[in-house]
Amino acid sequence: MSKPIFERVAILGLGLLGASLAHAVRRGGLAGEIVGYARSLETRDRVRELGFCDQVCDSAADAAKGADLVVLCAPVGAFGALAETIAPHLRTDCIVTDVGSVKSAVVRDVSPHIPDGVHFIPGHPIAGTEQSGPDAGFAELFDGRWCILTPIGAAEDDVSHTADRAEVEKLARFWRACGSNVDFMDPHHHDLVLAITSHLPHLIAYNIVGTAADLETVTQSDVIKYSAGGFRDFTRIAASDPTMWRDIFLNNREAVLEMLGRFTEDLSALQRAIRWGDGDALFERFSRTRTIRRSIIDAGQDSPVPDFGRHAKPGDKKA
Amino acid sequence: MSKPIFERVAILGLGLLGASLAHAVRRGGLAGEIVGYARSLETRDRVRELGFCDQVCDSAADAAKGADLVVLCAPVGAFGALAETIAPHLRTDCIVTDVGSVKSAVVRDVSPHIPDGVHFIPGHPIAGTEQSGPDAGFAELFDGRWCILTPIGAAEDDVSHTADRAEVEKLARFWRACGSNVDFMDPHHHDLVLAITSHLPHLIAYNIVGTAADLETVTQSDVIKYSAGGFRDFTRIAASDPTMWRDIFLNNREAVLEMLGRFTEDLSALQRAIRWGDGDALFERFSRTRTIRRSIIDAGQDSPVPDFGRHAKPGDKKA
Repeated sequence: MSKPIFERVAILGLGLLGASLAHAVRRGGLAGEIVGYARSLETRDRVRELGFCDQVCDSAADAAKGADLVVLCAPVGAFGALAETIAPHLRTDCIVTDVGSVKSAVVRDVSPHIPDGVHFIPGHPIAGTEQSGPDAGFAELFDGRWCILTPIGAAEDDVSHTADRAEVEKLARFWRACGSNVDFMDPHHHDLVLAITSHLPHLIAYNIVGTAADLETVTQSDVIKYSAGGFRDFTRIAASDPTMWRDIFLNNREAVLEMLGRFTEDLSALQRAIRWGDGDALFERFSRTRTIRRSIIDAGQDSPVPDFGRHAKPGDKKA
Repeated sequence: MSKPIFERVAILGLGLLGASLAHAVRRGGLAGEIVGYARSLETRDRVRELGFCDQVCDSAADAAKGADLVVLCAPVGAFGALAETIAPHLRTDCIVTDVGSVKSAVVRDVSPHIPDGVHFIPGHPIAGTEQSGPDAGFAELFDGRWCILTPIGAAEDDVSHTADRAEVEKLARFWRACGSNVDFMDPHHHDLVLAITSHLPHLIAYNIVGTAADLETVTQSDVIKYSAGGFRDFTRIAASDPTMWRDIFLNNREAVLEMLGRFTEDLSALQRAIRWGDGDALFERFSRTRTIRRSIIDAGQDSPVPDFGRHAKPGDKKA
């Protein structure tokens, strides 16, 4: 355990991400004090029982007061109001960051409230599970995952050079100590990348699970019993927190609609190949995708164990 | 190990499914002799090295000769020709079955070749991984999964009563001994159920991976690095065998196009909600899907470990 990077870390929002961050900060001894805030009394009481914060405050302002790092961990739709509430209480030289899954909208909503002398550095750890709430948090969530920082006012071709350079470096050091790899991007590019790697997959997963639920010719019990053929993988990500995801789609509209348009175009081409029995077109499309899977495994971003190791196969290494 | 159920089991096609079946038959001592055949010399040589068949034949006819159970494990597009080839060599009272992912087309292609006195009972074990080939096979593949039998000429409301009743019971006993639960269905209903639980998910997964590969604004390296946000789950099923999946879509066209039509309609509604900023509609759609996930886990068809246990969380039970 090294010297704490921050004196007082305030985590506003104590769901899966906020709770995991608190655990990771404690594991690494990265803060003199971990202070938490959650909007609901129920969550605050539960976090007091779980004990992963040194102190749980009943207001966001109290939590932010005196902190040298404030992390917004609520759904992104709540960030504007949250920033407005805490702004008058922020200590000069404080770093404000967030874990929101969209970045342009967060810059739009939060920046206007940030007082002079406070450093707002938007961030997004690409990590999560399908579970929600403070009980779902765990220290290892960020290990080996990427955390993207999108400093404001940086040149597009060199985002590490900003007015806040020292603070950006300090925040990057913090995330690395939480187990993450850190990358820099401008907010607009971040939103495009996440639209295809995360937002569109979630939209499609929510959609197919909804389609299946509405069928008349196939019962829900059939769908559940025979889900091992592929469907169950989609239900995992479609079990993610609905409020968080509503806010993401409302706040990354342009990029999601752009990616969705391309997806639909490609799907129409596949549909046509099926209708006209064009086996060569299908084979060609289905053959292109294995390379990407292999690259993701080589990059350490997924497990090579077949079927995610759901089957216990003797001799297999667990991820 | 109990008394073998069959004297000689012939497995025609030695990829993931055929190889796994051979392993499961051997594990359970379910056959006096396991005979294999694969179209390519390379596969036959490899299976001889791996040794999970008692005998590997250079022709399908030689493998089928004298067998009291013949299992077609090739891609479904090859079944018609395979049935025609082996037909003259089939022993009277032999059971012919298959592991194909579509059933109406298999009945259409295989039935005309089946000689009098031979019992053709189509089947489909709902099991698999994204890997292919004889090296990918393992005995536990069918454990706890469903195997659907679709006996021909059975009444829709009672598929267990067919002319072949004794043989259907024997085949069901065989699959149970391989670790599966057995269910009965008529071929048409099977194809509808699988269209939504397996074929459409695979089509969508192949499609989004293709869409991502074609982007100009987001590089392939971005997609790979940040795939942990959801995309990587789709790449797993999009890594499945292209020949097998081409044949499935060509042979379950009507049902897949029907499900795809509904999926696209629902997706348009979601697209509209995003475009018009209708947060309530999004929230409502995203809230409906958790129940199905919970039911799938309760039914033992998926692992409750968050994120499929990719993160080692101390105290978690592995699936």
